[in-house]
Amino acid sequence: MGKFIIVGERIHCISPVIRAAMEQMDPEPIIKRAKDQLAAGADYLDVNIGPAEKNGEELMKWAVKIIQESCDNVALCLDTANKKAIEAGISVYNRAKGKPIVNSADAGDRIGNIDLAAANNAIVITLCSKDGVPANNDERMAYCQEMLERGLGLGMDSDDMWFDPLTLVIKGMQEKQPEYLEFIRSLKDMGLNSIAGLSNASNGMPKEIRPIVDSVLLSMAIECGLSSAILNPCDKNLMNTVKTAEVILNRNLYADSYLEL
Amino acid sequence: MGKFIIVGERIHCISPVIRAAMEQMDPEPIIKRAKDQLAAGADYLDVNIGPAEKNGEELMKWAVKIIQESCDNVALCLDTANKKAIEAGISVYNRAKGKPIVNSADAGDRIGNIDLAAANNAIVITLCSKDGVPANNDERMAYCQEMLERGLGLGMDSDDMWFDPLTLVIKGMQEKQPEYLEFIRSLKDMGLNSIAGLSNASNGMPKEIRPIVDSVLLSMAIECGLSSAILNPCDKNLMNTVKTAEVILNRNLYADSYLEL
Repeated sequence: MGKFIIVGERIHCISPVIRAAMEQMDPEPIIKRAKDQLAAGADYLDVNIGPAEKNGEELMKWAVKIIQESCDNVALCLDTANKKAIEAGISVYNRAKGKPIVNSADAGDRIGNIDLAAANNAIVITLCSKDGVPANNDERMAYCQEMLERGLGLGMDSDDMWFDPLTLVIKGMQEKQPEYLEFIRSLKDMGLNSIAGLSNASNGMPKEIRPIVDSVLLSMAIECGLSSAILNPCDKNLMNTVKTAEVILNRNLYADSYLEL
Repeated sequence: MGKFIIVGERIHCISPVIRAAMEQMDPEPIIKRAKDQLAAGADYLDVNIGPAEKNGEELMKWAVKIIQESCDNVALCLDTANKKAIEAGISVYNRAKGKPIVNSADAGDRIGNIDLAAANNAIVITLCSKDGVPANNDERMAYCQEMLERGLGLGMDSDDMWFDPLTLVIKGMQEKQPEYLEFIRSLKDMGLNSIAGLSNASNGMPKEIRPIVDSVLLSMAIECGLSSAILNPCDKNLMNTVKTAEVILNRNLYADSYLEL
């Protein structure tokens, strides 16, 4: 199993600072957030421009260029419901640090994003759901198989499909957490890559509880075989958890200073 | 899977306060530590009197009596290399809150402690080792099977044998941690109870690192199916980790106040 991959989530149009920067095409706030996340240990950066129905193509191209030019061609995850915007982003994307990631396909309306990734030699995040929350792991697995077959049929390498088990909020869907973890283990047993937006799980919890919930769930998920996560790399608690998990699973050599490395 | 069982480790003759209290047969410091651990959420209390070659029988009887009498007959784990002292402790033990635990047997010199437990309708902690550190999980499993057969042959219920995978220090035996976790999963898959002294793993690490290492390892071990641990229940970080793991695994109902319960 390779190094756990961190996709930084902080370039997201839901953030007022980023939204304003995207509206005014002001590079500085976006570049700052890119550099902060890289300094904190992100491997990829997610670039979420929202639905971007109007100017998505122009906006994604601009964002890809300014981030890659100022951050040594960091690898990016292109995140929008606007397919043409993803294609436009890929058209200007520099692959020096890795393939672009298409975020995301699912087994429903967005299944065509697998085709988009296949046609562009990109990685694709494949969400194991169709219409809302999968009822159980049989349903998750059926979607996983359907998407896997589609990608393989289009000539993709299975390593380029990162399966997302769909993280569910604990407060409200507590009873679904154990099978969520089991599903991550199933993906690992099948030799498939996985990715999760883990901090969704603690949504709605009191602020002081979220760090321990995030840390315990992330530890469990990594032990189950999760291979990457979309998270805030500037959250020390999360990054220390990842680093510690890597040490315990013997994927990174222990040193007394390992949290600082 | 039942509730995760906490065995409080703080009545231990290695502590100067407890050692002095045991030497002088002064009940107060021991009773105080018993009450503190119970208030913090311990289910059982370990009573470690050391080798106690001279006065072990008298000392263990005294300790069992003063602790049970002052703490509503709390269930105890009798911890000493002196077999006769364990038998003496059991002879005065009140079973109102549960069977006594014999701590511990192994597949080597201490295998007779399984017989002792069987003869006294006690639980026994069975350490999956013989002479020092097991080379690998095949060796652990061989010891486990040997001890299980012995216990079953003596009429024990397998639920009364709590298998200890032998927690190894990360700093020095880092490469052995993944199979330690796998072994816990094997025990669970076999339907066997397990117990671990998890904080051994972070021994020798800088103080500021130990909490995150303890928490990540404990999270992983519980996900793998560990059913109990010997730990310091007064360590909030450890107890919050256990409580959070129980919530995520849906064994305890989530409430915003769950850490305070």
